[in-house]
Amino acid sequence: MEDEWGRRAWDQLSRVRDRSPLIQCITNMVSMDLMANTLLASGASPAMVHAAEEVGDFTPRVDALCVNVGTLSPEWLPSMKSAAEVAAGAGKPWVLDPVAVAASGFRMSACRDLLGLAPAVVRGNASEIIALASSHSIGGPHKGTDSTHASMDALEAAKTLARANRAIVAVSGAVDLITDGDRVVGAHNGVPMMQKITATGCAVTALIAAFVAVDPSHAFEATASALAVFGLAGELGMETAKGPASLRMNLIDFLHGLDESIVVSRVKIAPVP
Amino acid sequence: MEDEWGRRAWDQLSRVRDRSPLIQCITNMVSMDLMANTLLASGASPAMVHAAEEVGDFTPRVDALCVNVGTLSPEWLPSMKSAAEVAAGAGKPWVLDPVAVAASGFRMSACRDLLGLAPAVVRGNASEIIALASSHSIGGPHKGTDSTHASMDALEAAKTLARANRAIVAVSGAVDLITDGDRVVGAHNGVPMMQKITATGCAVTALIAAFVAVDPSHAFEATASALAVFGLAGELGMETAKGPASLRMNLIDFLHGLDESIVVSRVKIAPVP
Amino acid sequence: MEDEWGRRAWDQLSRVRDRSPLIQCITNMVSMDLMANTLLASGASPAMVHAAEEVGDFTPRVDALCVNVGTLSPEWLPSMKSAAEVAAGAGKPWVLDPVAVAASGFRMSACRDLLGLAPAVVRGNASEIIALASSHSIGGPHKGTDSTHASMDALEAAKTLARANRAIVAVSGAVDLITDGDRVVGAHNGVPMMQKITATGCAVTALIAAFVAVDPSHAFEATASALAVFGLAGELGMETAKGPASLRMNLIDFLHGLDESIVVSRVKIAPVP
Repeated sequence: MEDEWGRRAWDQLSRVRDRSPLIQCITNMVSMDLMANTLLASGASPAMVHAAEEVGDFTPRVDALCVNVGTLSPEWLPSMKSAAEVAAGAGKPWVLDPVAVAASGFRMSACRDLLGLAPAVVRGNASEIIALASSHSIGGPHKGTDSTHASMDALEAAKTLARANRAIVAVSGAVDLITDGDRVVGAHNGVPMMQKITATGCAVTALIAAFVAVDPSHAFEATASALAVFGLAGELGMETAKGPASLRMNLIDFLHGLDESIVVSRVKIAPVP
Repeated sequence: MEDEWGRRAWDQLSRVRDRSPLIQCITNMVSMDLMANTLLASGASPAMVHAAEEVGDFTPRVDALCVNVGTLSPEWLPSMKSAAEVAAGAGKPWVLDPVAVAASGFRMSACRDLLGLAPAVVRGNASEIIALASSHSIGGPHKGTDSTHASMDALEAAKTLARANRAIVAVSGAVDLITDGDRVVGAHNGVPMMQKITATGCAVTALIAAFVAVDPSHAFEATASALAVFGLAGELGMETAKGPASLRMNLIDFLHGLDESIVVSRVKIAPVP
Repeated sequence: MEDEWGRRAWDQLSRVRDRSPLIQCITNMVSMDLMANTLLASGASPAMVHAAEEVGDFTPRVDALCVNVGTLSPEWLPSMKSAAEVAAGAGKPWVLDPVAVAASGFRMSACRDLLGLAPAVVRGNASEIIALASSHSIGGPHKGTDSTHASMDALEAAKTLARANRAIVAVSGAVDLITDGDRVVGAHNGVPMMQKITATGCAVTALIAAFVAVDPSHAFEATASALAVFGLAGELGMETAKGPASLRMNLIDFLHGLDESIVVSRVKIAPVP
């Protein structure tokens, strides 16, 4: 029921604003600015801390962790693994964004290893989720970070991944799909032009981390809420946008300014048959 | 003739939009956001992939490569060289941006090495092109990434570089100069305030890569088209800009929205006597 | 007296515009875009150059250095130290931003080491200045890069740090405090929403470097001026902002466009009793 989902999304957003969860992000260099500003606009507190030397002191104190392999390198991978282990060991949720997982064997192997470290949520586009589920890195109509599939194409792969890893899996697309391997819902908010802004996918993954941080026992619902809220901010931003850069600005402005009535009435999350 | 150039610029931009070439960028950390958004706004597909471990799998599948040394380090240089070799070996065009080449002997040496790996295009400001042509790194009125010369001051250096390396060389400035060592044209679009936005030079180099990717047998013309189209988006953006940050937003919005009539009528590329 | 401070702030901003000081920034990856654009909008010339291999050639030629540990790693720390030593040895002012100094023992140790290399100015939020003065990295209500203290809470810590290191210490907050260990002034410009934009603190530290670069014998006053001018641009930007992202755009636009009458009349710097 849409009302229930809208109500819960507002409740979770309100918790993010009230508690300002500290979110450690070990993420790609392209996304850092938009990701930090997305977290700040939602009320969360971002911390881009990536050195392995800091994981032992810092990660136990964060509320959630976001790991994104967009500009992966051998120098950063050990920190990602170490932070994921520390977070999981401390019972803190962590979220994996397997950007362009099929770009290379190195990247696929890294993502498979990270997947083994008990992420609470995995979010990718359809091509990424399909590739990750099948572990095939080479071949196919690969287009870097852009998906060549619609989200529904990845539904079975998402369910398989979710069950095998006991994680929530989210597939971004025209409709975002969220599954725990059993239940599936679609988040219908958003506008196509958001895909013309770099790092919107990365940013929403960090927002998922913030939402899950404040409601960890409802990671499935929190993931759907974060995707819908971000998409809603994009819809509102699109009303006066003149292109992708003004949309990006508006999106952050509206994410910061969202109020109860608009979240409750316009969040569109619904079961997928 | 202006009409011919405007027509060709539109044709090449249309190809970028239709084919969405995958452009690998090994670039400086300051530029990543604007560069990715510039490529997306033009219709291309950016991939900031810099690990040496990924070059073998990934670079053969890209349509063009952009290498930019703005935040050069010894850790990144091998990837740049390796990707350039793979791209050149696979017949894929690659573009070099020798940012602040005169900042140090390390940087000059790196750029000279890269120059030996058969770039299709080299783009810099006048100070960078003059320094690269003479291989002098130290001394002179060096100002970091800002040019202390006008583009015409670098014309002979650009021709020399172009002939010696069988590459297209572009010199950015109030008028952008493009030469293959023999022909020289000027691209007259753009506004001075674009120089007050960080990474506009870096971003247009990536745009050149996208244009050359879709018309590799006309790299000279594609380079001029990319510079003119980017400058035109800046001109249109300047009409309502209140400063460099709103200009940056407008530039991306207009790059995304450019239509045939405005490109054909307003692109200004002309031979330099 | 406010008029005197406003007049001096305008004089120092004018010098930045006239001389375009070259500012080397070894800074975190989140802040690079906003920092470079802030420096450009003020009239300064940014150079994000961080490789240890370039310090010997490049750092002696810069007008000031900004070191920021936001995304610290063992790979970058030697460059930071080396550049700080070269700058201090050459009589060039350098400015330290101890971002999230209490995040880990590694970070605290790095900042303590950097503090020993004679920075002209140290700028942080209250929590950072308190932690740095006491060298305690672990424990306390730590919130990543966000302060959990008001600036006045850090006044004694700031004075102690300033005296012990013969540096200017600035504490950002609702009122920014600036002290040389003896004198204390407050800069009252700014709006709360600036804290919802990532890297505004980092950016103003770089702006301090530019202001000190053009008036090195008045580092105390230049630090106050830079903080007030940046805050003033935020105030002006807030008038039409719809959220943090439009505020960010407006802030840069207004920083670029500030004129004499508004700086002289609206800069609010006053002694702290």
